[in-house]
Amino acid sequence: VPVFSCFVFYAVLLVIKMYTIAVITGQVRLRKKAFANPEDALRHGGLQFHREDPYVERCRRAHLNDLENILPFLFLGAVYSLTGPSLTVARFHFVVFFLARVLHSLAYLLALQAPTRSLAYTAAQVPCVSMAVQILMSVAAYA
Amino acid sequence: VPVFSCFVFYAVLLVIKMYTIAVITGQVRLRKKAFANPEDALRHGGLQFHREDPYVERCRRAHLNDLENILPFLFLGAVYSLTGPSLTVARFHFVVFFLARVLHSLAYLLALQAPTRSLAYTAAQVPCVSMAVQILMSVAAYA
Amino acid sequence: VPVFSCFVFYAVLLVIKMYTIAVITGQVRLRKKAFANPEDALRHGGLQFHREDPYVERCRRAHLNDLENILPFLFLGAVYSLTGPSLTVARFHFVVFFLARVLHSLAYLLALQAPTRSLAYTAAQVPCVSMAVQILMSVAAYA
Repeated sequence: VPVFSCFVFYAVLLVIKMYTIAVITGQVRLRKKAFANPEDALRHGGLQFHREDPYVERCRRAHLNDLENILPFLFLGAVYSLTGPSLTVARFHFVVFFLARVLHSLAYLLALQAPTRSLAYTAAQVPCVSMAVQILMSVAAYA
Repeated sequence: VPVFSCFVFYAVLLVIKMYTIAVITGQVRLRKKAFANPEDALRHGGLQFHREDPYVERCRRAHLNDLENILPFLFLGAVYSLTGPSLTVARFHFVVFFLARVLHSLAYLLALQAPTRSLAYTAAQVPCVSMAVQILMSVAAYA
Repeated sequence: VPVFSCFVFYAVLLVIKMYTIAVITGQVRLRKKAFANPEDALRHGGLQFHREDPYVERCRRAHLNDLENILPFLFLGAVYSLTGPSLTVARFHFVVFFLARVLHSLAYLLALQAPTRSLAYTAAQVPCVSMAVQILMSVAAYA
């Protein structure tokens, strides 16, 4: 239970981080007047605002990258917690992933110089691959 | 078990709702002859049908929004069910999310007047944020 | 436990398969010099490489389709495992999904002739819908 609860703590913070990117995207759409749907543009000044904006697209890429990486972590972390790792080692996996994904979002939204974002992405993948390998070793007999 | 089963019921209905959007997208691609891949266009009349269509893009946005919101709910709802909430309160969270996401899909696919879709999105986020906060409070000691 | 472990085995392999598509996308971006972000293009030769590439877009569609299908499987398979199915029947569901999704990725990345990819997609949906129906029947009393 301590390992699973530790996982849940960082996992829920990351879900809230994802929600935050969605809120930012919505605010940028309103401020830049760049709407994906004609019905939204009509409500906010006219069909000419049914258009793309580079910073909105950047927010969307940050969000999509979160879907690609944080959502699998929600699964891997939960199952890994059930395989009986030590709390210290498990927390290290979760904290590295958490910090690397927060840095990834900051690097994306602030357009930090390359390769900051790529390094954050890679750093976050390391604990995920480590958990995946440990899970596979513990269930391989049931394949 | 009753709270978790109640969660699973609405969660699986929402997964089926997501699958339905994928099926609709495929049908619209066939009807409008607008294919994302040249090999699909070749099979259905020629490379000129390797093109975008506004309604196909609308279906894809509805689907992506589901990924951004329903998939985190699958995690939050499962963990929240394990924190021992009352069945009445928990069911209220699940039903609000379920109804709001069904309305969101209808508002998207039928292009209902703004801000119907945005209100449905926000209404669905309320139980999610509520569950996230309650989960964090119950596991914060294990951070 | 055997059914859940069997599920976890194929689920983790599919997560690794998704990660592989992300790695391939990154390699193709470097080889084709087609970057989604100006800061990446600047690091790799200049802003003229901030551009789209058809094969990069193909990789991204393959990845997005995985998010739409493999992520819900991670949920459905876990819950289905808890409903007490026979190991033989359950493993058949997982293996069909696994093989169909591997074929789907190959069909996408190699641009195999239509309708190979669509058939793989449909074959993978069959065990998912089967699991969804069985789950709904086992929890319907708690709705």
